[in-house]
Amino acid sequence: MTVLVFLDPSTPAGRLADASVAQLLVTDQGVIRGDGVFESMLYTAGAVRKLDAHLSRLRVSAASCDLDLPDEQSWRAAIATAVTRYEQERTPGPEDPDEAVVKLVVTRGPEDEPHGTAWVTVSPAPESGRRQREEGVAVVLLDRGYDSSLAERAPWLLMGAKTLSYAVNMAALRHARTLGAEDVIFTSSDARVLEGPTSTVLLATRVNGVKHLVTPLLETGILPGTTQGAIFAAAETAGWTLGYGPLEPRDLFEADALWLVSSIRLLAPVTSIDGTAIARDRELHDELSALLEAIG
Amino acid sequence: MTVLVFLDPSTPAGRLADASVAQLLVTDQGVIRGDGVFESMLYTAGAVRKLDAHLSRLRVSAASCDLDLPDEQSWRAAIATAVTRYEQERTPGPEDPDEAVVKLVVTRGPEDEPHGTAWVTVSPAPESGRRQREEGVAVVLLDRGYDSSLAERAPWLLMGAKTLSYAVNMAALRHARTLGAEDVIFTSSDARVLEGPTSTVLLATRVNGVKHLVTPLLETGILPGTTQGAIFAAAETAGWTLGYGPLEPRDLFEADALWLVSSIRLLAPVTSIDGTAIARDRELHDELSALLEAIG
Repeated sequence: MTVLVFLDPSTPAGRLADASVAQLLVTDQGVIRGDGVFESMLYTAGAVRKLDAHLSRLRVSAASCDLDLPDEQSWRAAIATAVTRYEQERTPGPEDPDEAVVKLVVTRGPEDEPHGTAWVTVSPAPESGRRQREEGVAVVLLDRGYDSSLAERAPWLLMGAKTLSYAVNMAALRHARTLGAEDVIFTSSDARVLEGPTSTVLLATRVNGVKHLVTPLLETGILPGTTQGAIFAAAETAGWTLGYGPLEPRDLFEADALWLVSSIRLLAPVTSIDGTAIARDRELHDELSALLEAIG
Repeated sequence: MTVLVFLDPSTPAGRLADASVAQLLVTDQGVIRGDGVFESMLYTAGAVRKLDAHLSRLRVSAASCDLDLPDEQSWRAAIATAVTRYEQERTPGPEDPDEAVVKLVVTRGPEDEPHGTAWVTVSPAPESGRRQREEGVAVVLLDRGYDSSLAERAPWLLMGAKTLSYAVNMAALRHARTLGAEDVIFTSSDARVLEGPTSTVLLATRVNGVKHLVTPLLETGILPGTTQGAIFAAAETAGWTLGYGPLEPRDLFEADALWLVSSIRLLAPVTSIDGTAIARDRELHDELSALLEAIG
């Protein structure tokens, strides 16, 4: 079941539509050129998590692409309409995950029209995310091809923008499966750790009893992780120390715990890299998970 | 006016549909992830040009993406249906360009469905292509970020596949316009000439009266140009010699003529690079244009 709400100036609360029937033109540049931006957020226990951070990142992505974005009030209204309808339509029970994905999409629209197309969908969260959160994921390292200093000198490559052009991200995940893994950590051509195709890399170490949390440098052209940002803030308050890369692959192998973090799957522990088992400090995982849970 | 025909097993000749109304689900992975492949072909004087080469490249792109593709017979039937309808609906006259774009698209479809979505559109060719063919284009060199040996060792980057994930290509063209240019020639991180965002680079030199045509090495991860391939074959028959890079930027400046070639725009002479004027040998241009015209 997918609930769909279009942002539409003539309907300030958002226009409900049927996601099971066709709703988009084949001439939309979002379709024929992946020319648009998006966000995916977790909806659980009656609330959309980290809404402000996601709206903010959507704004940055749209600016990178010179894309007009409906105003924030329109997004908030459409999201409210969508989750209200989702709550009306869902059938709570043992099958119901109580977790949904709220997706925000805006495309450039058809070439001869001045405005893009913007919508919100709400649909049940995939079971795979909850499973990976519990069981962890085996990953492979794959070269992303870019050097880690490229993003700042080549804005036309849209690094750090969350565009609809995700074919490479999806191809990398398929490639991982052919290697017996479930996910990927991209590395740069100069052997720095970057990010996952749909996640941020996070590692923890204990040094003389102090818990230390590290994520790759943002300047390497990775997407700024909203979940990583929230965890960092909460962990710092809880007494952890924080660090930002540069990270090399060996840092991953030497960590006391390693995760792929993302808005829907949350903290997915990495169990192995290229077939080599990775330490999983259960206490660090449980403490970070509790911090993330408390963020709301 | 856009004619639209879906490939549909229940309608072997292709199913005509109205392109001016919504026809696609918002959950199609072609929409939300740019996960699909495409081709654009020129239709003029009653024929689709280089159809075999485009169908062949579509097959290669789909295979790179592990994407199911309708069989060739279905594509040919749908294309025939689409151009027939286009001929019926167009109104020949001084405004009519007698050039149309035939676009083939196939997406991965919605996540919970086994089949993708495949369609053909036919629409009038944009006036800008004909203008650039006559007047030429000012280009800028932009770093594509990849080194020229990456493609062969990183198949998950889908280099050389024509996917719907064209956001970077479009961003590069927008960036060029902010610099006062109209188009782009991408270079690799190791300073090799690659390709344009929607074109192949071609240069010609005269050495002791022999005309020599050169294009970048395909192994650099560029898209194999169907127009470049057709011109090479025709030029060789006409007595030109042929060469394949590696090319460096200075080779572009030293050429007797330089073009961006593509299926719709055909041969667009490059008039300047980063503001520096480029030689335009009119005789070479006219001869190559005539060869291309004769290919049909």
